[in-house]
Amino acid sequence: ERTGYPEIIYGEGKTAEQITLIAEKLVERHGKVLVTRVSEEKAADLKEAFADSFYHSVSRIFSVGKPEKLYRGKVMVLSAGTSDLPVAEEALLTAQWMGCEVEAINDVGVAGIDRLLSYREYLQTASVLVVVAGMEGALPSVVTGLVKRPVIAVPTSVGYGAHLEGLTPLLGMLTACASGMSVVNIDNGFGAAYQAALILKVANEEK
Amino acid sequence: ERTGYPEIIYGEGKTAEQITLIAEKLVERHGKVLVTRVSEEKAADLKEAFADSFYHSVSRIFSVGKPEKLYRGKVMVLSAGTSDLPVAEEALLTAQWMGCEVEAINDVGVAGIDRLLSYREYLQTASVLVVVAGMEGALPSVVTGLVKRPVIAVPTSVGYGAHLEGLTPLLGMLTACASGMSVVNIDNGFGAAYQAALILKVANEEK
Amino acid sequence: ERTGYPEIIYGEGKTAEQITLIAEKLVERHGKVLVTRVSEEKAADLKEAFADSFYHSVSRIFSVGKPEKLYRGKVMVLSAGTSDLPVAEEALLTAQWMGCEVEAINDVGVAGIDRLLSYREYLQTASVLVVVAGMEGALPSVVTGLVKRPVIAVPTSVGYGAHLEGLTPLLGMLTACASGMSVVNIDNGFGAAYQAALILKVANEEK
Amino acid sequence: ERTGYPEIIYGEGKTAEQITLIAEKLVERHGKVLVTRVSEEKAADLKEAFADSFYHSVSRIFSVGKPEKLYRGKVMVLSAGTSDLPVAEEALLTAQWMGCEVEAINDVGVAGIDRLLSYREYLQTASVLVVVAGMEGALPSVVTGLVKRPVIAVPTSVGYGAHLEGLTPLLGMLTACASGMSVVNIDNGFGAAYQAALILKVANEEK
Amino acid sequence: ERTGYPEIIYGEGKTAEQITLIAEKLVERHGKVLVTRVSEEKAADLKEAFADSFYHSVSRIFSVGKPEKLYRGKVMVLSAGTSDLPVAEEALLTAQWMGCEVEAINDVGVAGIDRLLSYREYLQTASVLVVVAGMEGALPSVVTGLVKRPVIAVPTSVGYGAHLEGLTPLLGMLTACASGMSVVNIDNGFGAAYQAALILKVANEEK
Amino acid sequence: ERTGYPEIIYGEGKTAEQITLIAEKLVERHGKVLVTRVSEEKAADLKEAFADSFYHSVSRIFSVGKPEKLYRGKVMVLSAGTSDLPVAEEALLTAQWMGCEVEAINDVGVAGIDRLLSYREYLQTASVLVVVAGMEGALPSVVTGLVKRPVIAVPTSVGYGAHLEGLTPLLGMLTACASGMSVVNIDNGFGAAYQAALILKVANEEK
Amino acid sequence: ERTGYPEIIYGEGKTAEQITLIAEKLVERHGKVLVTRVSEEKAADLKEAFADSFYHSVSRIFSVGKPEKLYRGKVMVLSAGTSDLPVAEEALLTAQWMGCEVEAINDVGVAGIDRLLSYREYLQTASVLVVVAGMEGALPSVVTGLVKRPVIAVPTSVGYGAHLEGLTPLLGMLTACASGMSVVNIDNGFGAAYQAALILKVANEEK
Amino acid sequence: ERTGYPEIIYGEGKTAEQITLIAEKLVERHGKVLVTRVSEEKAADLKEAFADSFYHSVSRIFSVGKPEKLYRGKVMVLSAGTSDLPVAEEALLTAQWMGCEVEAINDVGVAGIDRLLSYREYLQTASVLVVVAGMEGALPSVVTGLVKRPVIAVPTSVGYGAHLEGLTPLLGMLTACASGMSVVNIDNGFGAAYQAALILKVANEEK
Ligand SMILES: Nc1ncnc2c1ncn2[C@@H]1O[C@H](COP(=O)(O)O)[C@@H](O)[C@H]1O
Ligand SMILES: Nc1ncnc2c1ncn2[C@@H]1O[C@H](COP(=O)(O)O)[C@@H](O)[C@H]1O
Ligand SMILES: Nc1ncnc2c1ncn2[C@@H]1O[C@H](COP(=O)(O)O)[C@@H](O)[C@H]1O
Ligand SMILES: Nc1ncnc2c1ncn2[C@@H]1O[C@H](COP(=O)(O)O)[C@@H](O)[C@H]1O
Ligand SMILES: [Mg+2]
Ligand SMILES: [Mg+2]
Ligand SMILES: [Mg+2]
Ligand SMILES: [Mg+2]
Ligand SMILES: [Mg+2]
Ligand SMILES: [Mg+2]
Ligand SMILES: [Mg+2]
Ligand SMILES: [Mg+2]
Repeated sequence: ERTGYPEIIYGEGKTAEQITLIAEKLVERHGKVLVTRVSEEKAADLKEAFADSFYHSVSRIFSVGKPEKLYRGKVMVLSAGTSDLPVAEEALLTAQWMGCEVEAINDVGVAGIDRLLSYREYLQTASVLVVVAGMEGALPSVVTGLVKRPVIAVPTSVGYGAHLEGLTPLLGMLTACASGMSVVNIDNGFGAAYQAALILKVANEEK
Repeated sequence: ERTGYPEIIYGEGKTAEQITLIAEKLVERHGKVLVTRVSEEKAADLKEAFADSFYHSVSRIFSVGKPEKLYRGKVMVLSAGTSDLPVAEEALLTAQWMGCEVEAINDVGVAGIDRLLSYREYLQTASVLVVVAGMEGALPSVVTGLVKRPVIAVPTSVGYGAHLEGLTPLLGMLTACASGMSVVNIDNGFGAAYQAALILKVANEEK
Repeated sequence: ERTGYPEIIYGEGKTAEQITLIAEKLVERHGKVLVTRVSEEKAADLKEAFADSFYHSVSRIFSVGKPEKLYRGKVMVLSAGTSDLPVAEEALLTAQWMGCEVEAINDVGVAGIDRLLSYREYLQTASVLVVVAGMEGALPSVVTGLVKRPVIAVPTSVGYGAHLEGLTPLLGMLTACASGMSVVNIDNGFGAAYQAALILKVANEEK
Repeated sequence: ERTGYPEIIYGEGKTAEQITLIAEKLVERHGKVLVTRVSEEKAADLKEAFADSFYHSVSRIFSVGKPEKLYRGKVMVLSAGTSDLPVAEEALLTAQWMGCEVEAINDVGVAGIDRLLSYREYLQTASVLVVVAGMEGALPSVVTGLVKRPVIAVPTSVGYGAHLEGLTPLLGMLTACASGMSVVNIDNGFGAAYQAALILKVANEEK
Repeated sequence: ERTGYPEIIYGEGKTAEQITLIAEKLVERHGKVLVTRVSEEKAADLKEAFADSFYHSVSRIFSVGKPEKLYRGKVMVLSAGTSDLPVAEEALLTAQWMGCEVEAINDVGVAGIDRLLSYREYLQTASVLVVVAGMEGALPSVVTGLVKRPVIAVPTSVGYGAHLEGLTPLLGMLTACASGMSVVNIDNGFGAAYQAALILKVANEEK
Repeated sequence: ERTGYPEIIYGEGKTAEQITLIAEKLVERHGKVLVTRVSEEKAADLKEAFADSFYHSVSRIFSVGKPEKLYRGKVMVLSAGTSDLPVAEEALLTAQWMGCEVEAINDVGVAGIDRLLSYREYLQTASVLVVVAGMEGALPSVVTGLVKRPVIAVPTSVGYGAHLEGLTPLLGMLTACASGMSVVNIDNGFGAAYQAALILKVANEEK
Repeated sequence: ERTGYPEIIYGEGKTAEQITLIAEKLVERHGKVLVTRVSEEKAADLKEAFADSFYHSVSRIFSVGKPEKLYRGKVMVLSAGTSDLPVAEEALLTAQWMGCEVEAINDVGVAGIDRLLSYREYLQTASVLVVVAGMEGALPSVVTGLVKRPVIAVPTSVGYGAHLEGLTPLLGMLTACASGMSVVNIDNGFGAAYQAALILKVANEEK
Repeated sequence: ERTGYPEIIYGEGKTAEQITLIAEKLVERHGKVLVTRVSEEKAADLKEAFADSFYHSVSRIFSVGKPEKLYRGKVMVLSAGTSDLPVAEEALLTAQWMGCEVEAINDVGVAGIDRLLSYREYLQTASVLVVVAGMEGALPSVVTGLVKRPVIAVPTSVGYGAHLEGLTPLLGMLTACASGMSVVNIDNGFGAAYQAALILKVANEEK
């Protein structure tokens, strides 16, 4: 139990039956479970198996049990374009489920910088920021320059050609010159939110 | 003579003697010559061979003959960081030599967006923009979103690790979501300026 | 409204419903809209929703409102092979919709150079050239050498094996030795045409 | 001043004179400065220019002004092999300079897991962990599994052949299955420490 | 017959008819046959054609004839996660069919090192270890450090994004710092087991 | 002796002493020897060791013994730019040394297509063509379209950035749409000439 | 007509209708046509449209008109494994259709070198060899070492994992140390055969 | 001490002083030490520090203490070309130092298959084979097909262009179709020999 949150399942490549089996054990022990990357079909089966459950089709998140707010502070999730929404929502719901207050700001891509700038003051209310962007992935650099908070950048697989299924924004985010950001795998909204929640956890313990 | 500007030499990998030989013929015919990528050592030799000549060590540009202003309109060259200066200067001097009015705005990287934004109105005075950036190369996307002018993006080889000697900003610029920009090879300030000058040329003819 | 042409939608990955919603607002405000990468299925739905609309299946362009000729000058779109047509047509219709006079020259791949050369004089009537090519992407280099106009090169994903889904012609175009060309993303006929139209726009303002 | 710590200079590719110039202004304003990637030669010049200065040759860090402990909590820096030391030390000194209590555990590569395991309890005393590893970069996954704290992973360029100058551990860390870690660029000990310090900063404010 | 075990067929890309034809000849001559990468559909056809046959759907192995234990010693197959099971099972059944005693330890990924460590003593009972892992592929390094036996590492295609369909763990395993391991192709459980069996064969001859 | 021409040495990475030793044996047996990739320094030593020898510094070819014309037909070597000369010369001297009539046409890059076209009729006098090009490597496609002869394409490492040290023209040549060409390794003028000579050999035998 | 054999169509990505249209014109003018990469479905349509036609489903070649033997000499096509057959057959039928005598030797992969060696003397009867291989693509090197004839190597997309869809054997063939071979694109049996036929053509003219 | 042979040092990137320090402790405890990748300069210093020491400049191996033959069986090291010798020698000396009988067969590249075949019977006397090859790396496939023994393949960085500093033979060896081989990192003669010795060790224990 050492590393916390063992009640999370990676749904990709598991059948509804396999997920049900594992989830039942976890629910029994922890009273709750979070499953990522669940298709609508599998979700239908899972909903039948678990009473107090919830499914969100855009983020493909399935969960059992209500999240309770555990930590002071707030995780803010920003995303650049409409197609980055599934990843942003995965981050949002994960952080919330783990006990964080969350907030989403979508559609603030850098090609129309004014929308982002209109949130400038508001960004300062976040404790940690998860910044999701596809295409060339420039959003996290700009955001990191606007705040004194840790930024976790998530490249997405949204793009074509030279975008290389997300490798291009991934490498771009890693080589960005703004200090204070780190990066997770392509489309890994879950992973970014998980670390964001750990940061709030630390913040709540270190006083 | 069809394609214009034949009096330009790519200096890399040519000896001072070879450059002198080619340049002499071009000067004879066109009264002027531009040589790119000339090291300080070669420049010393070239300066002896040509009377009315000029060498700029940061951009490594050597030229014979004075540029004359040929076109209405202005080429604006923006660059993100100090280390992008050599490429930005190569662009600046090339466009100027080809007959354009030029202007430079340096050190406007996106991690400190306010500096760039302070030039916002001023950017509108350009006819074409050459935008030079290393690291993740996010500057051209932001700039393209701020103006209704064609933007030519130049990635630079300044960076390390995931930057892949410039491949990362190159691919990022190609996959950027801002409309109105196109891209040239890594460190090719010359090529961007050349196209910028051609655009002013068209602009001066199409009336 | 600063950056112009906000009434353009990237159709890929959006449902017909989502497109309809966004397009309705844009038509209301601007009287017209352009949607790229629209499949035949979605187009059928869109045609029902918009009265004065047009769909072109090869280029997958859907538009509402008639283009009006805004600028003097001409955008010429060249393409190498039959399979590059969808991208060339996307460029053609985009430039036209944005207010440019356009002209297409297809099937002028470099392996049969005579067809291209037969247009040699005619190429000089263009203000800007968009040159589309798959395979090894050699056409833009040759064309750039034949004209004194800016050339915007578009690599296509047409090819196999060492073609790497378009990466090979993309990199080839970027490293070409002809001066005066720049490059956009693989299959991005839209982006090339957009910049071409901006160039005509500048040309019409700078007098 | 919004984003904090402006008094940091990236020394690579700047001459001792350039660094001195920038550093003088920063010292004047902030009373301190940190310069990363400073060679021994440049350091010699810098030491003459600044009285109260310090140079550490392994990490290539040069600084002016004493760090003061600003935050409760501790940044622990782990490294896998002897050759990862320069990067680990860069992280250590950066975090310390920014006001964090720091601690280093070196030589705990996964091929001899017992050394790492002997620190198992001790790892729990950290607030944030910076984990530095070259070769295949497996250390951060294992460490993340041992603690409930955020882990920032730093791949190094130490290795040969299939190691691809650090790309291999970089990609490996990004694709690791342990939840709670994020990644920075190859050899970017500075960047990891910077984010770690921001996390402590948040932790000290969120009470 | 020189190289041994000619009675093995690579089933991928062969029709059930083609496999039946080749397998019939091999069974006639050797009394047994092993076919890898057989889909459930093909297996149904093959089962009708061969009386004394066996199909295992997870590993997609089809075989005719009973394995007999030929060698002293034991091949131990370890795998990191649930999704690595098909590859681990392919290895297990291949080694067994070739005459080895085999043993499987699954679900011992490095992010939860305690499960692996609980087998620490037991690992010493193996003669050769086949270690299967997807994601960042860190398991073989850790295992190699725990035993004085040859370890054959098998990267799997299980992962996403920076995982590059298995290239990332493949390169990671090749660059690992633990001595005593070598690597086979992505998902090649068969190849690892084949070499493991050859090692036992040598071990049984060299006395 | 079956495969012919054993009297050829790859000079790269061998010391002058090693080359002398091998070359002496070959001269003894065959009366001649060809050594490729010989630096000026090594050549000086070799010239002392062998009486009837020849060194060409641009192509870095060293040879002993006079070539005799063995075959009817002609190998024509074309090259695109000045910097491709070393590779073109390596091809030329190799084919000549192997007994072919050779001819060189340099500086016929596709960006100035007229120079190439002025040789159009003359190209038809070749039996086989070796076409050398750096940058984007477009020359072989155009040439192959102009002749009914086999074309062997040689990409060179001349270029920068997206040129990837020759990988870009290499891949481009492989994916070219002109029929009748094949490709050898980057800078491998020797290999192309060797195959060209074999083709003339076949041509002289098949009558 | 200069470059010969214009009556060849690349079938991939063209509809049966498009192919029929082009083919009809070619048949009218040349009395024959060859179409590569034709699926069974399209072939059914084409067979109805053309009387004297032929379709070969393994190689996906469709042709109209009988090949006539035009040249002395023989093109020998070797292939490594069963799965390389489609590419080998494409080469075989192309060369035959272009007027060459052809011969196929299949299943001579290097892992069982004896089968290849049993043809050793027979290989000498070829004028040109087309050598097709997937996996690591080692066959052409070995064959080139066995004959004094030009070898055209064709890598295939048959393989998995580190095989990178054919890039690995492609690069391997290009870097092979055997002199006398050149390489065409992945799966390009057609291109190899085309060049082989041109070589025989030269051989028949150069007497 | 569990994993055996702790008395081995990777010399690359360590100073002579650092090596001396570590080696002294190891010699004290184990009576012997092996250091790989030691330059001639460092070796000179080391020889002064250790009495009973040995340095081999081709393989860059430095050792203290005499190897004693520990195991029955033999490690055979094959290499393709002269330039692969340093890696082959590193393997040879490592295996010998670890207690194995060793034997070297050099210069048996596949382009001249007869030399390899002349050792055909002799190869059968090996217990394990280490096969070293640069260029396209085809040798291990052929050798594996000739013996019933485990083969450990070592790609080398010898080559140019498409060879990609050893990546090409590395990937080729991994995708080879011969069963019974596995692969280690580029130039890692040490690692291959280490595993070979472990195999002999197992062979000597499993009786
Ligand atoms: N979308 C995701 N991407 C990466 N890791 C995940 C994701 N969802 C869950 N995980 C991690 O995978 C672990 C569960 O893996 P599994 O045992 O395969 O269900 C969880 O504890 C999380 O750490
Ligand atoms: N820095 C540069 N990068 C790319 N192309 C250049 C550069 N400088 C000059 N060129 C182009 O190279 C041509 C001359 O090449 P060369 O004949 O090798 O001197 C000029 O006409 C320019 O088109
Ligand atoms: N080693 C480093 N790697 C990456 N970024 C750095 C490094 N050192 C300093 N920086 C960042 O670079 C900025 C200064 O860049 P510059 O203006 O070029 O000196 C600092 O504010 C830091 O954010
Ligand atoms: N899953 C596998 N991966 C790699 N090689 C295999 C696999 N299964 C069988 N093989 C090898 O492929 C050979 C048979 O290939 P084939 O002649 O195409 O059936 C066998 O002798 C094995 O050496
Ligand atoms: Mg910040
Ligand atoms: Mg704009
Ligand atoms: Mg031009
Ligand atoms: Mg943890
Ligand atoms: Mg071990
Ligand atoms: Mg031709
Ligand atoms: Mg030969
Ligand atoms: Mg074998």
